Amino acid sequence: MIGAVFSAPYILIQRRIIMDCLFCKIIDGEIPSTKVYEDEFVFAFKDIAPIAPVHYLIIPKVHISCANEITEENSNAVAKVFEAAAKIAKAEGIESYRIINNCGDDAGQTVKHLHFHMLAGIKMGWGPESLGKTE
Amino acid sequence: MIGAVFSAPYILIQRRIIMDCLFCKIIDGEIPSTKVYEDEFVFAFKDIAPIAPVHYLIIPKVHISCANEITEENSNAVAKVFEAAAKIAKAEGIESYRIINNCGDDAGQTVKHLHFHMLAGIKMGWGPESLGKTE
Repeated sequence: MIGAVFSAPYILIQRRIIMDCLFCKIIDGEIPSTKVYEDEFVFAFKDIAPIAPVHYLIIPKVHISCANEITEENSNAVAKVFEAAAKIAKAEGIESYRIINNCGDDAGQTVKHLHFHMLAGIKMGWGPESLGKTE
Repeated sequence: MIGAVFSAPYILIQRRIIMDCLFCKIIDGEIPSTKVYEDEFVFAFKDIAPIAPVHYLIIPKVHISCANEITEENSNAVAKVFEAAAKIAKAEGIESYRIINNCGDDAGQTVKHLHFHMLAGIKMGWGPESLGKTE
């Protein structure tokens, strides 16, 4: 009974965090998106602010806040994201693409739900300039 | 016996491809590198042409040519890469980083062994300019 008293607030907090997550809401359909792929583990949709002709966001359905939170217990979520990327590429005839994951503020992560940008449809460069405008 | 005659050249071809892989040679120690992490599945080392203050390459030990080749059978290799990234970040006190995988020519993949750039130590930007010099 003491256990129940102590565990209830924790459960409420956990739910609140996830309910406040933009991408959890997109997965649930509470916020609309242009879906490009979905399976048991993964949801993929068009980025609303694309930076390339093809710009999808591929996200695990399980809420992981960022790459720092990946462990042996939940890393299968990332495996499923990359399986999905290969399937999406094949289905859409995309041979070449860049996949980017931003973890934390310095990398520009805005939504704290692990997500992978899939970028294609343009020949991309490589060098310090491909980090964007740095500070 | 006929089976053996036909299978031998195939095995030789398979070995030749992997033996010619720069990153397989780095994993084997045949080509030197500045190692930052290694476990049963993953090898990580400093990029010789860094584009950020911290620039590591994290690669699976199994030879997968690019993200297009990821399937349910081999995707655990990617899970292990991201587990390693989180461990490296924690060990080195890196809170924020960008992980990039380039698949194919348009994305600028030069070595045909699946690899993930881990970039940190600088505040990075986001936008079309973060694709580098595009064509």
